[in-house]
Amino acid sequence: MATDFEWTRDQFVPLDGIIYLDGNSLGLLPKSAAHRVTTTVQDEWGKLAITGWNRAGWMAQPRSLGDRIARLIGAEPGHVVVGDTLSIKVFQALAAASKLTDRKVILSDTGNFPSDLYMAEGLISLLDGYELRTVTPDQVAASITPDVGILMLTEVDYRTGRRHDMSALTKTAQANGTLTVWDLAHSAGATDVDVSRVGADFAVGCTYKFLNAGPGAPAFIYVNPKHAATAHPALSGWLGHKDPFSFDPTYRAGDGIDRMRVGTPPVLQNAALDAALDIWDQVDMADVRRACMTLSDHFIQQVMAQTDKLSLASPADAGDRGSQVSFHFKDGYAAMQAVIDRGVIGDFRAPDIMRFGITPLYIGTDDLTAAAKVIADVVNNDLWTEPQYQVRQAVT
Amino acid sequence: MATDFEWTRDQFVPLDGIIYLDGNSLGLLPKSAAHRVTTTVQDEWGKLAITGWNRAGWMAQPRSLGDRIARLIGAEPGHVVVGDTLSIKVFQALAAASKLTDRKVILSDTGNFPSDLYMAEGLISLLDGYELRTVTPDQVAASITPDVGILMLTEVDYRTGRRHDMSALTKTAQANGTLTVWDLAHSAGATDVDVSRVGADFAVGCTYKFLNAGPGAPAFIYVNPKHAATAHPALSGWLGHKDPFSFDPTYRAGDGIDRMRVGTPPVLQNAALDAALDIWDQVDMADVRRACMTLSDHFIQQVMAQTDKLSLASPADAGDRGSQVSFHFKDGYAAMQAVIDRGVIGDFRAPDIMRFGITPLYIGTDDLTAAAKVIADVVNNDLWTEPQYQVRQAVT
Repeated sequence: MATDFEWTRDQFVPLDGIIYLDGNSLGLLPKSAAHRVTTTVQDEWGKLAITGWNRAGWMAQPRSLGDRIARLIGAEPGHVVVGDTLSIKVFQALAAASKLTDRKVILSDTGNFPSDLYMAEGLISLLDGYELRTVTPDQVAASITPDVGILMLTEVDYRTGRRHDMSALTKTAQANGTLTVWDLAHSAGATDVDVSRVGADFAVGCTYKFLNAGPGAPAFIYVNPKHAATAHPALSGWLGHKDPFSFDPTYRAGDGIDRMRVGTPPVLQNAALDAALDIWDQVDMADVRRACMTLSDHFIQQVMAQTDKLSLASPADAGDRGSQVSFHFKDGYAAMQAVIDRGVIGDFRAPDIMRFGITPLYIGTDDLTAAAKVIADVVNNDLWTEPQYQVRQAVT
Repeated sequence: MATDFEWTRDQFVPLDGIIYLDGNSLGLLPKSAAHRVTTTVQDEWGKLAITGWNRAGWMAQPRSLGDRIARLIGAEPGHVVVGDTLSIKVFQALAAASKLTDRKVILSDTGNFPSDLYMAEGLISLLDGYELRTVTPDQVAASITPDVGILMLTEVDYRTGRRHDMSALTKTAQANGTLTVWDLAHSAGATDVDVSRVGADFAVGCTYKFLNAGPGAPAFIYVNPKHAATAHPALSGWLGHKDPFSFDPTYRAGDGIDRMRVGTPPVLQNAALDAALDIWDQVDMADVRRACMTLSDHFIQQVMAQTDKLSLASPADAGDRGSQVSFHFKDGYAAMQAVIDRGVIGDFRAPDIMRFGITPLYIGTDDLTAAAKVIADVVNNDLWTEPQYQVRQAVT
């Protein structure tokens, strides 16, 4: 496997004149993806129509794509499947976990992505007597008490990049008889997460961020092999049935991870994911993790050396961070617009976070040196005070 | 609006040497779709990256695409949204309906698509004391009793094409205080369904069949305006939140149909749907319905005139059918393989159904005349007995 990321940079379509530090929100386009998707449309849908489900392998993709993601997150082959959106997969994991315990408390933290909390709320609205208990990230370990049925956490905080100690928290959960649902949205393709070693019960994630599978790319779900035959999928769709084409009137869960399939797979999105994974297939996550740490340390050092107007929102120790660097800045929204206007794309998260993604597959030391200079220039010289940067848009 | 379907046929990529009677399973590729999808990948994802959510309008698509589908199913504008898969939308509609009634019986029929029944089973596994009651299609009307909370039906039977009287059944449901969830999988783009006139409470459907939006195209959901402000989305994802980008830790349902959004929209699939709807925007569903009826009558007449080995599984009266024609044939699987081998694509549904979709946008009288000849030839001359047609594949 390649350990030098120069060759991977060449696999992506660069944004003209832009330093793109938002790959933690939407990854860049892999060069091979456009052709892959076009071929899927023209040569598969266009020429095979319905026969594409077998002849082009569309039906098998959720499993084969899942196996390729499995390697990146340390999952056992055959225990990851692709489909739906991350919110749906969170619901699916929580619903399945709720059937494996008699306890009625779901514990999460305020650093979790809101959609995860919303989906837990939604599930609880259907269940009888359940409680969603939310604590601050530093209170999580002490809050894993024997009444907690499910611990639902996102490994890396989407705002600060703070990384939970997944191994220690999972161990504490296990000691308390608590099941774990880990959201790897900011981990897959970013950290050296190892769900098997850690012993996670369920893990979910998305593929449009660090994995570069494009806007609206499908999510994935991992179920620990020990639950493979017992996890009950409340979202019991026909493609999770043991024999979908028997059109059995009663649901019978498919074997293992197959039961976490729901409806028809998104074939065009899967084609883009397939192209994106061709790159990931050739890299080792330990190398990626090392590069993320080195690059983010370099970026922090460069920014902090040039301005004292920003305070680091991310942990100072690279070991405690995912693959992003965030700063607090009171007028962060306007400042980010000014930074973007000067060719560095990051994003803003309320209330005051300027967030920059570190994606070693296509971002290097020089990019981060140049970006730091732009950021320091904007905040040191109050360039963000210009009126055009004060107007908010819905999505940045 | 155009009433002659000759021009629409020209908008699709034909299958070389094939008569395609499977558009009720997966519609043919619209000629403009490949370019539309490629442009979305190369010029939007490739050049705009994260800024595509606003600048390319990706975020607004689920609503704008929904409005275009709304016209085809007789829904009020602003009350249909696109996303997820049909199974997920069934779950979403049932879960929302369950919160609008105190009754704990969901009534459905054995003619429903299995996945709808499975999703109801899955929902019930989370709820307390609910029952899924399944009767035969002809027993439905008499089974709508005052203890039934939700009537969940698919308008057109996926095997036989038998069409429920949606208006009469909805009226009976209303008279009994029962909410309705209608699955329009085989109705959208196929029948002159009118959810507003009928007074359906919820309706869901897919876009990869008659609407021609491609493999894995997203589903849609309609919520009657009278429930727009009260329907509670149990699949409460962040894009259904009133203000997703406030990253509020607590869910607040978005306005009206927006709350039925869940996660990130499938932008590449939506591009194909957009291209497919460019054709639908120019047709009137009353014209499509008339053509479906005429064409299917012609097809039945042609087949029945040439063979007595098939028995009609579909209703004989076109008014009682959706837009497909099905025949019983004991060795239907093998016979369908032999028919496909001779250039006519239909499909097989257990136990003995040979199914042919009627899609007037790209299928005409001559195609059906020719197809009938092939079908009659296969069954009259026992061509299906050849050994290569006896081996079953997972999907046809």
